[in-house]
Amino acid sequence: MTTEFSLIQWIRGRAGTPRSLLMNIGDDAAVFDPSFASSLAVTTDLLLEDVHFHRSWTSPRFLGKKAVAVNVSDLAAMGVKPYACLLALALPENCTGPFFQELMQGFFESCSRWGMPLIGGDLSRSSKVMLSVTAFGYGEEGTAAYRSSGLPGDTVCLIGNVGLSRMGLEYIHQSSRTGLAEVSSDEALLHWAGNQNIFECLKAHLLPVPKIREGVWLREKGLVHAMIDISDGLAADLLHIARESGCSLELDADRIPIPAAAGRELAAVTGHFPELLDYALNGGEDYALAFTLSTDQMTQLADNYPSGFQAFQPIGRLKAGQPGLFLRTGGETRAYQPRGFDHFQ
Amino acid sequence: MTTEFSLIQWIRGRAGTPRSLLMNIGDDAAVFDPSFASSLAVTTDLLLEDVHFHRSWTSPRFLGKKAVAVNVSDLAAMGVKPYACLLALALPENCTGPFFQELMQGFFESCSRWGMPLIGGDLSRSSKVMLSVTAFGYGEEGTAAYRSSGLPGDTVCLIGNVGLSRMGLEYIHQSSRTGLAEVSSDEALLHWAGNQNIFECLKAHLLPVPKIREGVWLREKGLVHAMIDISDGLAADLLHIARESGCSLELDADRIPIPAAAGRELAAVTGHFPELLDYALNGGEDYALAFTLSTDQMTQLADNYPSGFQAFQPIGRLKAGQPGLFLRTGGETRAYQPRGFDHFQ
Repeated sequence: MTTEFSLIQWIRGRAGTPRSLLMNIGDDAAVFDPSFASSLAVTTDLLLEDVHFHRSWTSPRFLGKKAVAVNVSDLAAMGVKPYACLLALALPENCTGPFFQELMQGFFESCSRWGMPLIGGDLSRSSKVMLSVTAFGYGEEGTAAYRSSGLPGDTVCLIGNVGLSRMGLEYIHQSSRTGLAEVSSDEALLHWAGNQNIFECLKAHLLPVPKIREGVWLREKGLVHAMIDISDGLAADLLHIARESGCSLELDADRIPIPAAAGRELAAVTGHFPELLDYALNGGEDYALAFTLSTDQMTQLADNYPSGFQAFQPIGRLKAGQPGLFLRTGGETRAYQPRGFDHFQ
Repeated sequence: MTTEFSLIQWIRGRAGTPRSLLMNIGDDAAVFDPSFASSLAVTTDLLLEDVHFHRSWTSPRFLGKKAVAVNVSDLAAMGVKPYACLLALALPENCTGPFFQELMQGFFESCSRWGMPLIGGDLSRSSKVMLSVTAFGYGEEGTAAYRSSGLPGDTVCLIGNVGLSRMGLEYIHQSSRTGLAEVSSDEALLHWAGNQNIFECLKAHLLPVPKIREGVWLREKGLVHAMIDISDGLAADLLHIARESGCSLELDADRIPIPAAAGRELAAVTGHFPELLDYALNGGEDYALAFTLSTDQMTQLADNYPSGFQAFQPIGRLKAGQPGLFLRTGGETRAYQPRGFDHFQ
């Protein structure tokens, strides 16, 4: 018989243990000795059924993986290393069997991949599936990278793709294929997608890869001023940096990586060719990493950037002036109003 | 116009600041320097509409207060001091006006009362109201009080009432009065209740008071072995201590505080007299504190317990033997099976 207690015991037997942990799952709180850290970062993200995802559009395995990855992406944006996480999980009664086990398998695989064991949480019945993950990251010295640390003269760089995730979402929306909820491996997803470009879009949406190695490295090397992960859309998130740093941010339209090949594939399905720059600027859920740094830091970055890391791309600059976002196309510069995702707009 | 951004800005202007905070609301993560703490405890609790509460049965002000209090109660059970909290909040679109402001006023009042400022969170649209609070507590020396730290020979003590909260819930259920969702102060609640006993029941359910002073003091004075807060029901939670400590726990039925006066008032409304011992043992949501300690510690406790604290009551003992819960009534002792709340049973 499934009980709350039996589900917690199932989880308890599979969760890992981070260093310095004094008490994990099964008490009123998890407890650890934080003396290894000079700073602790904490972040929380909701994943709600029919708001952030649909059960027919993702397997529980992928959903569990994504819940961890999006929180790790927030830690990447601070340049801190993953330490541990909590999961508050609400499930309908008919989801406590295979759905629960697949979800948690995906969750634990992602925890293991990013070095962030589960140390506690809460479990509840509900009418819809809901995950609320809280993630802890740590820095061993120096300060974290804040949105407000940008300076006039900084170059704005991007690591990762933008626009692909929204293309993946639209492909899922428009495709007449069924069975995506049963797809729970890369191989099966490639097969379901039918070709490499669509696979990349679907993967960007369903299995985002946080740029944690890159974010931590940038901070540890002192080669970053402001940093943010791109979850609401490139333009909306860069506007956060501009506002918090009190600078104007000028974006070069022709340096933004445009998902052209994926766009052509999407057009073949939807029948109309997407506005690629709009996807790149306002896509959302990209989990790319944007950061700013001085000219001196930029030189050091170019000289020392590890070859195994995902490439960085300079896409604009911070300037003194009215905080805001500006788009430079050809020789012209105009104020740009992001159309990023807002839950209540 | 209400936007996600405007709601976050509203919150940002009202949240407090704990010591050693390096970055609060408005970045990808909150950041603090944990060097003031020898141990950090983290806990998370869900409050879901139509699972944990109904919007017609509580004002948003009371709901916000309770969301904080139940997490502080978990910290009390570890004997750690509140440090800060995160709030992941999901709201229907028609709840972003006065409902949101009242909810957050209650939340902030409770944060202020328990010394636990809000430092971050997430905000989402949803079909129902949902709060997921993560609370951090700290110890400055020594270890936290775990469920597993009980020893054979320990006395089991209780601080606080049990059973009242469920009586309050049943009163709300059975009463024909309306307007409880507009009741947002103690005075108004007393007026709505009509008499002191019903008021105490309603207050226990809607505005639980965590025993944080008592829990922290017990830990700091080293006068506790195992400790737990009573959220699932006294019997169910004591069984946790018995199991985790590997002891048998014997409960004296005639030493458990029985809510007799409240029971008589409830009977006048419902028409039948409640089984008082059952309410006390299996009520749930009591947020009382149960702990175990040795005979020596018990003597010190009796000698040093501060007069301003809520009284403690010895209610049983731990014994070597098969882990389990036993109830002693008169001269007889029998195994007792808790009927505590389980989300999936």
